[in-house]
Amino acid sequence: MTTRDLTERLGGLAFGGDYNPEQWDKEVWAEDDELMRRARVNLATVGVFSWALMEPEEGRYDFAWLDAHLDRLHAGGVAVDLATPTASPPTWFTKAHPDALPVTADGVRLVHGSRDTYCLAAPAYRDAARRIASALAERYGRHPAVALWHVHNEYMTLCFCDHAAAAFRTWLRERHGTLDALNEAWGTAFWSQRYTSWDDVLPPRATQWHHNPGQSLDFRRFWSDTALAAYREQRDAIRAHSDRPVTTNLMLPGYQNLDLWAFGRELDFVTVDHYPDRPGLDAAADTAFGADRARSFGGGRPWLLMEQGANTVYAEGQVLPKDPGDIMRHTLSHIARGSDGALFFQWRQSKAGAETWHSAMVPHAGPDSRVFREVEALGDAVTRLAEVAGSTVTAEVAVLHDAEAWWASEADGLPSPALDYHLMLRRAHRALWDVGVVTDFAHPEHDLSRYRLVLAPALLLMSDAGAANLRRYVADGGTLLVQHFSGVVDERPHARLGGFPAGPLREALGVRVEEPRPLRREERITLSDGAHGTVWSEYLHLDGAEAIAAYTHGMLAGHPALTRHAYGAGHGWYLSTVLDTSDYTALIARLLGEAGVVREWPPGVEAVTRGGWRFLLNHGDDTVPLPEAAHDLLTGGPLTELPPHGWAVLRMP
Amino acid sequence: MTTRDLTERLGGLAFGGDYNPEQWDKEVWAEDDELMRRARVNLATVGVFSWALMEPEEGRYDFAWLDAHLDRLHAGGVAVDLATPTASPPTWFTKAHPDALPVTADGVRLVHGSRDTYCLAAPAYRDAARRIASALAERYGRHPAVALWHVHNEYMTLCFCDHAAAAFRTWLRERHGTLDALNEAWGTAFWSQRYTSWDDVLPPRATQWHHNPGQSLDFRRFWSDTALAAYREQRDAIRAHSDRPVTTNLMLPGYQNLDLWAFGRELDFVTVDHYPDRPGLDAAADTAFGADRARSFGGGRPWLLMEQGANTVYAEGQVLPKDPGDIMRHTLSHIARGSDGALFFQWRQSKAGAETWHSAMVPHAGPDSRVFREVEALGDAVTRLAEVAGSTVTAEVAVLHDAEAWWASEADGLPSPALDYHLMLRRAHRALWDVGVVTDFAHPEHDLSRYRLVLAPALLLMSDAGAANLRRYVADGGTLLVQHFSGVVDERPHARLGGFPAGPLREALGVRVEEPRPLRREERITLSDGAHGTVWSEYLHLDGAEAIAAYTHGMLAGHPALTRHAYGAGHGWYLSTVLDTSDYTALIARLLGEAGVVREWPPGVEAVTRGGWRFLLNHGDDTVPLPEAAHDLLTGGPLTELPPHGWAVLRMP
Amino acid sequence: MTTRDLTERLGGLAFGGDYNPEQWDKEVWAEDDELMRRARVNLATVGVFSWALMEPEEGRYDFAWLDAHLDRLHAGGVAVDLATPTASPPTWFTKAHPDALPVTADGVRLVHGSRDTYCLAAPAYRDAARRIASALAERYGRHPAVALWHVHNEYMTLCFCDHAAAAFRTWLRERHGTLDALNEAWGTAFWSQRYTSWDDVLPPRATQWHHNPGQSLDFRRFWSDTALAAYREQRDAIRAHSDRPVTTNLMLPGYQNLDLWAFGRELDFVTVDHYPDRPGLDAAADTAFGADRARSFGGGRPWLLMEQGANTVYAEGQVLPKDPGDIMRHTLSHIARGSDGALFFQWRQSKAGAETWHSAMVPHAGPDSRVFREVEALGDAVTRLAEVAGSTVTAEVAVLHDAEAWWASEADGLPSPALDYHLMLRRAHRALWDVGVVTDFAHPEHDLSRYRLVLAPALLLMSDAGAANLRRYVADGGTLLVQHFSGVVDERPHARLGGFPAGPLREALGVRVEEPRPLRREERITLSDGAHGTVWSEYLHLDGAEAIAAYTHGMLAGHPALTRHAYGAGHGWYLSTVLDTSDYTALIARLLGEAGVVREWPPGVEAVTRGGWRFLLNHGDDTVPLPEAAHDLLTGGPLTELPPHGWAVLRMP
Repeated sequence: MTTRDLTERLGGLAFGGDYNPEQWDKEVWAEDDELMRRARVNLATVGVFSWALMEPEEGRYDFAWLDAHLDRLHAGGVAVDLATPTASPPTWFTKAHPDALPVTADGVRLVHGSRDTYCLAAPAYRDAARRIASALAERYGRHPAVALWHVHNEYMTLCFCDHAAAAFRTWLRERHGTLDALNEAWGTAFWSQRYTSWDDVLPPRATQWHHNPGQSLDFRRFWSDTALAAYREQRDAIRAHSDRPVTTNLMLPGYQNLDLWAFGRELDFVTVDHYPDRPGLDAAADTAFGADRARSFGGGRPWLLMEQGANTVYAEGQVLPKDPGDIMRHTLSHIARGSDGALFFQWRQSKAGAETWHSAMVPHAGPDSRVFREVEALGDAVTRLAEVAGSTVTAEVAVLHDAEAWWASEADGLPSPALDYHLMLRRAHRALWDVGVVTDFAHPEHDLSRYRLVLAPALLLMSDAGAANLRRYVADGGTLLVQHFSGVVDERPHARLGGFPAGPLREALGVRVEEPRPLRREERITLSDGAHGTVWSEYLHLDGAEAIAAYTHGMLAGHPALTRHAYGAGHGWYLSTVLDTSDYTALIARLLGEAGVVREWPPGVEAVTRGGWRFLLNHGDDTVPLPEAAHDLLTGGPLTELPPHGWAVLRMP
Repeated sequence: MTTRDLTERLGGLAFGGDYNPEQWDKEVWAEDDELMRRARVNLATVGVFSWALMEPEEGRYDFAWLDAHLDRLHAGGVAVDLATPTASPPTWFTKAHPDALPVTADGVRLVHGSRDTYCLAAPAYRDAARRIASALAERYGRHPAVALWHVHNEYMTLCFCDHAAAAFRTWLRERHGTLDALNEAWGTAFWSQRYTSWDDVLPPRATQWHHNPGQSLDFRRFWSDTALAAYREQRDAIRAHSDRPVTTNLMLPGYQNLDLWAFGRELDFVTVDHYPDRPGLDAAADTAFGADRARSFGGGRPWLLMEQGANTVYAEGQVLPKDPGDIMRHTLSHIARGSDGALFFQWRQSKAGAETWHSAMVPHAGPDSRVFREVEALGDAVTRLAEVAGSTVTAEVAVLHDAEAWWASEADGLPSPALDYHLMLRRAHRALWDVGVVTDFAHPEHDLSRYRLVLAPALLLMSDAGAANLRRYVADGGTLLVQHFSGVVDERPHARLGGFPAGPLREALGVRVEEPRPLRREERITLSDGAHGTVWSEYLHLDGAEAIAAYTHGMLAGHPALTRHAYGAGHGWYLSTVLDTSDYTALIARLLGEAGVVREWPPGVEAVTRGGWRFLLNHGDDTVPLPEAAHDLLTGGPLTELPPHGWAVLRMP
Repeated sequence: MTTRDLTERLGGLAFGGDYNPEQWDKEVWAEDDELMRRARVNLATVGVFSWALMEPEEGRYDFAWLDAHLDRLHAGGVAVDLATPTASPPTWFTKAHPDALPVTADGVRLVHGSRDTYCLAAPAYRDAARRIASALAERYGRHPAVALWHVHNEYMTLCFCDHAAAAFRTWLRERHGTLDALNEAWGTAFWSQRYTSWDDVLPPRATQWHHNPGQSLDFRRFWSDTALAAYREQRDAIRAHSDRPVTTNLMLPGYQNLDLWAFGRELDFVTVDHYPDRPGLDAAADTAFGADRARSFGGGRPWLLMEQGANTVYAEGQVLPKDPGDIMRHTLSHIARGSDGALFFQWRQSKAGAETWHSAMVPHAGPDSRVFREVEALGDAVTRLAEVAGSTVTAEVAVLHDAEAWWASEADGLPSPALDYHLMLRRAHRALWDVGVVTDFAHPEHDLSRYRLVLAPALLLMSDAGAANLRRYVADGGTLLVQHFSGVVDERPHARLGGFPAGPLREALGVRVEEPRPLRREERITLSDGAHGTVWSEYLHLDGAEAIAAYTHGMLAGHPALTRHAYGAGHGWYLSTVLDTSDYTALIARLLGEAGVVREWPPGVEAVTRGGWRFLLNHGDDTVPLPEAAHDLLTGGPLTELPPHGWAVLRMP
């Protein structure tokens, strides 16, 4: 199933948000009905945090209240995205199953009083979750209001308890087969860590010094698989009773305990939650970063923005408000990049509880407010975009992204704590966004042949297959930029010997790195072409490549920093430092030029073509004339120029 | 009972400090007798840390050593402030009652080896504390040396153990009556936190994400009530055997687990411990801040400075020494502001133990030292001030202070971590101190009619009654300044809907705040009147008020930042940002002018009128001529001018 | 036994490193044989992390694999430093003896998955360690390959478990005899900490506020003694079967849980591990700092550098590479300062495990690499230095160093957290290094008569005997510089009363410090001689000394800051602040001049005389002519000048 199964039912793009009527009384419900109508809400996510109401004691269900809300919403023309409430077990769960509470690496057993106080590997939790999902599906599987199933909420937390340990061992037996194989993969010959009994294998709990990197990496893999198994159990329980699409909302924070490629393959369509972590233009860039990942995890198919904050930017530990217009800008960016709608967390701002200050479509101030007026205008705009539903985006550039490389970058004992996977990924995307290019993300082992340019930042871990795939991509005519300290370990993770990156990739790049030379915290170096670098440098040898820029100081003076290699029909570039933003952007612009990627719009205009429509966001202070007048879906009339900080959705001829 | 019951017995103001003779031998005791005489010490606090000596094993008391010290002191003309030793249980207590040791939110059970290793909610601890208090009172209740009872020491610590949990539940039943009411108050509909059994309710122990703010706030209330109940038990046990006043020394740190208003009502008179946390002029301001709070918590009656450091400023994690003269300055400031004496922790600097480096009246260096010479001079000065005993201070300005607002400001998930209650309270007091005005503190629900000006900083939480009280104050002619993000939640705490502050207060202020807009960490904004703000801004609407200054940047450009509203016979001001210090001080000066508060002394002179005496501290480098010659109690002669950095206590005509 | 027992067997200085063949396969072993030959390796440390292989299940040994490696090495001319593997128990140890796992002060029991997961005080661990040491010694005690025994690895970790508690109590009974004595020493009269039963005494586990300083200090002493006892058990087990020297490799980090003077007395010769914590010139200085300590701990006898990183500088949380030539420079510095060889951790860089990124003699890149080429050159150089084996270094200057003073400086509640023992020790050594002087370290109670100048930084704790020893040193003609806040507590630790430093030392210095006045974090003061100070100041009185420089600001203006006292035949200097580096170095230069220490070489030349050889390292950019041509062991020819950044080892006439 796809987003079409949703949008056809809705008659257009989805618009709405999490709706928690149990927090309010019937006077408010009546106002909700009225305000949803005004805002053109057509989809409400219900039940995410309602386990305690649905199942007030273990095994006893109470759905009457839910029936009433679903009927009311349905009567008002609002479809329902029905959630299984399994992200927040009721307090009785703690008492009934204390062994199913989560335990930190330090051995602290967390208790209820927040949310997500369960261990995904605990049988009692998995049983309880499957039962409530089944019960919901049985009752509402074919309810006319239900348009979508929302399993759980933001799978994110880890657990180090004994259930997790037992499940980890089972998973390891599956992966490694024998203890000998596990010992080999983890390199347990070092520090006398050899396992002689499966029973001795544990999660990476608190220990004396560094953890074993193989153990840490496998635990992250295991956990992601466990979360996916938990998802599949609920999905299958729902499918037994319902023909509506099923998904779970993936969170996109600065860390990631899940392999979202794997999730993308199991969801009827991808849905994500996205909250920018900086305000202003950075938030616009971060929105594109999130949306492009969401689209990519679903293989390019349309997806759905399940949560954004109407007025929320989480930055520097604060809950900052958005600037006026940002609600529209961010939403248009998401839809431009493939979302078949825009939902918010949440409809009405909570008056109590842990997220009292998380913003909402109807703020504490009520409907007579800037925020609700912007939400109304947005509801109108989204309605006008109905025709784009189901269309797709084509990108000529991809950035490689791999959860395993991320996890490997968080091992103990790496040469530098500045190896920040997420930051490097984000910088690559940002440079492309800054020069006006739409970007896909791809896994290193994906077919990359449709891309003119591929960037590979921060792939510390790379499999043989990945390295061979990148070599093939270059040989077949692609332009590839590999960045520092990539392809350095394989998937066990074992260091690659004889220099890095991994052999096949070395061929394509025409270089061999002999040793990394992390820079000191304050150090900023100059290259021979005047560019500047920080964080990292490397001692590398040309093996066919030409040096485009060289280091100018210290032992590396005269040695190559940035290289280019003609290989087969393509070119392999290698960058061994972290360039300053402007230098990095200039390099990306040069690569785009060489790769033949054409940019049509002046700087500051974010332009995305989705199907037969072009989305434009002018982030600049100047009016931008259009090459030719075009029909703007948002105004319903012709447009000849884009005003400063304005936006448009043009139907292409 | 009042401080008169003490000062009449002493024949003047109290002077002395904590005295721990058990740390020394008899040669030192003899020197103590001599040095106390030289320093005119008339009150010694004995027994604070003597539990292990008083009750060497559970139920067996040994008071012989204490008899001897009390007799010796009495013979030397030194009265005794006799402490119950319950802040530091002996090591046998750990073994006998391991369940009564404190437990952190993470579940770590703390052991002895320091002090305060008990849980105030543990029955075994409460029993043991009551027993030793009773035994002491029975033996010494009418001992001629005993002039005052000092229950416990600095109630401060929290505990999250099972006893605390059980007691918390009992307290919650009392407060909320039913689980439904608790669920409503805490907003447990959010995150599926609904309680279906009292047994499931816990202290806010370690959990996965944010805690519930209602749970956190109620736990702080519960804990304060628990501490007060513990105090009352000991007090009542003492009163059964003694006719001397009873108190406990309240600590005034930058956090506060107690509602000191409630304590103030239960003490015969307030006593506080005060340690400045910055040196120099800041220490002088902080001293006034502490003293004004101490006086206010006791309803304006005379109080007693129970502890100060002879030479100690705790700043930046260091134990900094005071500057010469500061011992006199700080003490005069305390007495000016209502203290009927000045005590120190401690008489003689410990040669061993955890507070070896905490200063004392007799330092490690011995009596041939700057510190002891200053102490001697101070003892002489305090003796000369005997006639001020019992007199009171009248202030025309009050700053509102509420522990519940403080606690609410420490909830998880607030818009900004920069909502620093203590800092905001302190800035308000400091601005008034800088312009030379004596300040009371008051609770938002107190009768405020005697004040010309009231400042309300940082009252995130405000009850309906408080808001109505403030409206009444303005209507009746008062001048009120309410500062940003006040009156935003009620006492459950639930957000106030429709804009803030709370409705009645909005009327008095003539504004409605639609949304808070916290500023970024580095952000500094300019208002239309040239003032600057940081930390916070708000989008607010005039509803009768006039804008005194407007924002000049971003979405708020042109919108009001500082407003003034003529309401009834008074004026309600609202300030929606955190002004720079100089701008804030200028605003306070303007408000004082409008409110008719007259300042007689030039900047830099701290002048406090207590009863018929005027205390003067010249913090400046210039000589300040007096308007007319006056009798200075300290010199015993007439004074016509105040030298640079000098002081005087003038008998007013 | 001495290093001669090793070097005679090797026929020269030791060269090699930790060798972990169990991490590799036989193809690699063959390459190892070849590369060791090329690099002139003559000693390999084997078995450090091999417990799991040696004893795959409790009580069952497997030495066949080890036999093969020892035979192979022996056949290749490489001797073996055979390690007991007790620093890293196998995973079966956790299951068999969960009570022997280490526990943090917070009560977290650490598990395997790293290394050092044992409690040194747990009987099960001690038994297991002794058994495996015995088994190894029995099998290999007279194996021809074995040239040295390497007990354990870097004794460093603490434990707070119940075994540690029980052993601590036994140790305390031994030290204090009676509970009364313990109570007196710890000052338990304060905070009601009096112990009435030995059973109540605990390690300094998590508690409410400050720990008792006596308890903390005694726990550190106890732990050091425990580690030494653990060492002795293994050593004695080995000696029962072997006539080869026995040692353990001491780690020199920025903290220290061991009294290395005590260890030095028990080792056949000292071996240390040294990793600079800053790159460049700082690494050179830190190398000398480490080497001088190593030599001193062994009483000046030759020692052995057991571990250095071929290419590793651990700085700022990073694994930074060394600059080219540093491998040679650091090694020559170690040998110059008394090391009879140079070993590395490790021979071949691990391809997996927790220290994958720790450098090695054969890096990931393989032998075709800068690092291995430098290692080959170094092997050649070390071989050429054979004749220096066994010779010693004579220093005219000593810096006092005492683990007890260090530990005391880490007590809770000290006046300033800036009392950084290690930093102060290092600054003293660095100033001497900067002016070209070779430095010994000495304990305050050592015979100091052979030194012209003694520096005493940061000796917060000083025994009466130490103070008397320093007085005697000055009286007998020595020049002594005592730095701020030294001699302030005795060994219990109790504050010294009447002013500090300790009485006998006050006589020698002619000053009495009345009170310390720590400076604020940002504060920088100027002295009357133009020098600048930070961190600390003191209010001190001259008592015979003359003021060399005075404070110029605040209450201390005009009071002495730096003093000099002619006492007996010598001079006692006292410095009461922390001088800026250049001012401190100038002071040290002046003291050297007064003490008659002659410096022959220009700044930037590190010159060390060992036996009849002079080691020279030119850290400067200029060519340095030699006073006369000399034979350079490294080139085997005459040398007349030292090139910029060059080095030489001259045979002295």
